[in-house]
Amino acid sequence: MSRALNRSDLEEANAEFYAAIEAGDLDRMSAVWADGTYADGVCCVHPGWSMLRGREEVLRSWALIMANTSYIQFVLTEVEADVYGDQAVVTCKENILTADEDTEAGFLAGGSIVASNVFVRSSGEWRLLLHHGSPILNVTEEE
Amino acid sequence: MSRALNRSDLEEANAEFYAAIEAGDLDRMSAVWADGTYADGVCCVHPGWSMLRGREEVLRSWALIMANTSYIQFVLTEVEADVYGDQAVVTCKENILTADEDTEAGFLAGGSIVASNVFVRSSGEWRLLLHHGSPILNVTEEE
Repeated sequence: MSRALNRSDLEEANAEFYAAIEAGDLDRMSAVWADGTYADGVCCVHPGWSMLRGREEVLRSWALIMANTSYIQFVLTEVEADVYGDQAVVTCKENILTADEDTEAGFLAGGSIVASNVFVRSSGEWRLLLHHGSPILNVTEEE
Repeated sequence: MSRALNRSDLEEANAEFYAAIEAGDLDRMSAVWADGTYADGVCCVHPGWSMLRGREEVLRSWALIMANTSYIQFVLTEVEADVYGDQAVVTCKENILTADEDTEAGFLAGGSIVASNVFVRSSGEWRLLLHHGSPILNVTEEE
């Protein structure tokens, strides 16, 4: 276990995932996710959704979300990154500002999502294998 | 990548996680989760909760949940297991039957949770590193 190894590369890969959503850029999003032998194992849970499986299905969902999002901005907090050989786990809280075209101009909604992101090292790059995001609904015992 | 390697051991480790919850047995639950050098990286999201980090905090949350659950039963569907060297990802849908002591006797509530479970191979055993469960709230584009 090399917790420190490639940690900044890993945090950069994690940040690029959110930057791709903010930019609404499906090409950048495609480059974020694992491919090749990992493609079938790619999986994604959007907040409140069920599991999506396979690179193609996951990217299709992002295309749909991007097409229906006029503005979204992420402020990440509580970012924790651990490297385990050629795999890595990043967890973070997504503090989201968003606007919807169906609502009145200027309307912004906020929300907090907790995310688990599992990366694999592929051809020297960290690529996203699993993203699981879920709404924070309850106050936990700690708070 | 060896998708087939140790897949049944992996599915057994995943099933033991849910069996430990059903049995309300914290010792069995302790044996499910990764320990040693992995202990700090252990993380868990209960449905609607924020992220819990570290083996101790995660096990404390399970003790609390077990103390407040008189009856719970899991039927797992859509179980998918992928092995990546010494790490593995299991995803599944938790179909839950539960009863709460505060409600009238015999009351059972159901619910569906989507779960991502990341395991690490430690001393020849699959141990749970990350569990992320979240409520299924929306109908996805696929349904």
